[in-house]
Amino acid sequence: MIPRLYVTADLQPDGVVAIDERATHYLRNVLRRQAGDPVVVFNGRDGEFNAEITALDKRAVQLHLTARKREQDSVPDLWLCFAPLKKDAVDFLIEKATELGVAAFRPVFTQHTAATRLNLDRLAANAIEAAEQTERLTLPEVHTPVSLDQLLQNWPAERRMILCAEAGPALPIADALQRFTTAPEKSHPSGEKGAKPSSWAILCGPEGGFARSELDRLNKLPFVTPVGLGPRILRADTAALSALAIFQAVLGDGNLRPPPSMMPIGQRA
Amino acid sequence: MIPRLYVTADLQPDGVVAIDERATHYLRNVLRRQAGDPVVVFNGRDGEFNAEITALDKRAVQLHLTARKREQDSVPDLWLCFAPLKKDAVDFLIEKATELGVAAFRPVFTQHTAATRLNLDRLAANAIEAAEQTERLTLPEVHTPVSLDQLLQNWPAERRMILCAEAGPALPIADALQRFTTAPEKSHPSGEKGAKPSSWAILCGPEGGFARSELDRLNKLPFVTPVGLGPRILRADTAALSALAIFQAVLGDGNLRPPPSMMPIGQRA
Repeated sequence: MIPRLYVTADLQPDGVVAIDERATHYLRNVLRRQAGDPVVVFNGRDGEFNAEITALDKRAVQLHLTARKREQDSVPDLWLCFAPLKKDAVDFLIEKATELGVAAFRPVFTQHTAATRLNLDRLAANAIEAAEQTERLTLPEVHTPVSLDQLLQNWPAERRMILCAEAGPALPIADALQRFTTAPEKSHPSGEKGAKPSSWAILCGPEGGFARSELDRLNKLPFVTPVGLGPRILRADTAALSALAIFQAVLGDGNLRPPPSMMPIGQRA
Repeated sequence: MIPRLYVTADLQPDGVVAIDERATHYLRNVLRRQAGDPVVVFNGRDGEFNAEITALDKRAVQLHLTARKREQDSVPDLWLCFAPLKKDAVDFLIEKATELGVAAFRPVFTQHTAATRLNLDRLAANAIEAAEQTERLTLPEVHTPVSLDQLLQNWPAERRMILCAEAGPALPIADALQRFTTAPEKSHPSGEKGAKPSSWAILCGPEGGFARSELDRLNKLPFVTPVGLGPRILRADTAALSALAIFQAVLGDGNLRPPPSMMPIGQRA
């Protein structure tokens, strides 16, 4: 297994980069790698590079970049707006949502959000780890938590919000998203005319659900599309991941395939 | 919070049921409930009942069923065939797949499956807990693990298998599933004519992916539809849950809404 690491330095062929303490610890103490061992690195901007460990001591590791392995790509412009959950549920949500190609995490405190704080450093570290382990070339952005009021006051009008609505009027999510794929000359059921939006968000509530007043308010906003996720009550993290997976399949990059260089081990034999 | 419990006994209005040791421990020692406290029970056959604790000692709890709360329903006939994973990943997969309405778990050992055993009791207990906590009225069946060979030799021909294929020819999952929703007189791209199948399975490989020979073999089977899950390499559990969520949205019961009695707490105010 060749370790894959996120680094902050610029990357170019034949370049030399130093890596941070976290990655140093991981390479040295967890994986017990030595000078001469291969590594793969990415920084979210310059694609992915093959590299070799050239020097390694307690506090720093130096890498020599040998060749560019993959060109930079990007993910659909999709925010996940979510109410902070218990620690384990947040860890899990960040990991899975990163795999599913979220562009940014936007934590939002709603009326019934039980969690009162969110460890943003931990959140960012989990996102880095998930990106490293699942071949992503970008990191999701991590935003500071805001209240639902603040989120809505500063909402960019052109960004369409898919609201996971446990109650009230809502199309099934597959239907609702499918309608955005129809020709631009048709008017959207939301009343909006024009091309398919290019920026999106999914908004999921906390374990207790949204307050009725919050749902009423959200439903009146021109950029909101309420959707239903089926007949079962899903936990908040399950709802968020379902919506993400369905979004990527219907409107996101679900029509793409992994590049051959990313084939799983079983396929390389 | 009114506890919701799976019980094995038959349920009928005004009936009296005794509950098992697991539920007794939970009610008595974890939740510290007493005689007179309300409980909700279901058994997967007779719907869901309001009940009251009438007697409670160290080893048994007796309940009096007051009224039927919901009629029995079912989930789409969808199997999840999955390669056993590490303990935490299996726990998580069982919990989330139960929420997403899987009808049966069919563990299958493939060539690159790293896990060598699977604790079926733990798996069943996790499924019960997830069903209890997410208002499901049925439990998913839990099958004994088999090899991929055995699974395929005994495969019911009318059951369509959605194969999560990391490599090789495959339509994007949304497209592939959408084609099954078209009129029955049209022939399916798989060559199959006739009505939309009524029984389904999703097959996901282990962390290392399927072996090339396994994928080749699967792709030749008339009941298999290979699908792609987008450009990122997903962990095995993420792939399974994405496929389940997308299946329910496009071909399953994603067009239904939770009954009003299941509204989240935030909506009841």
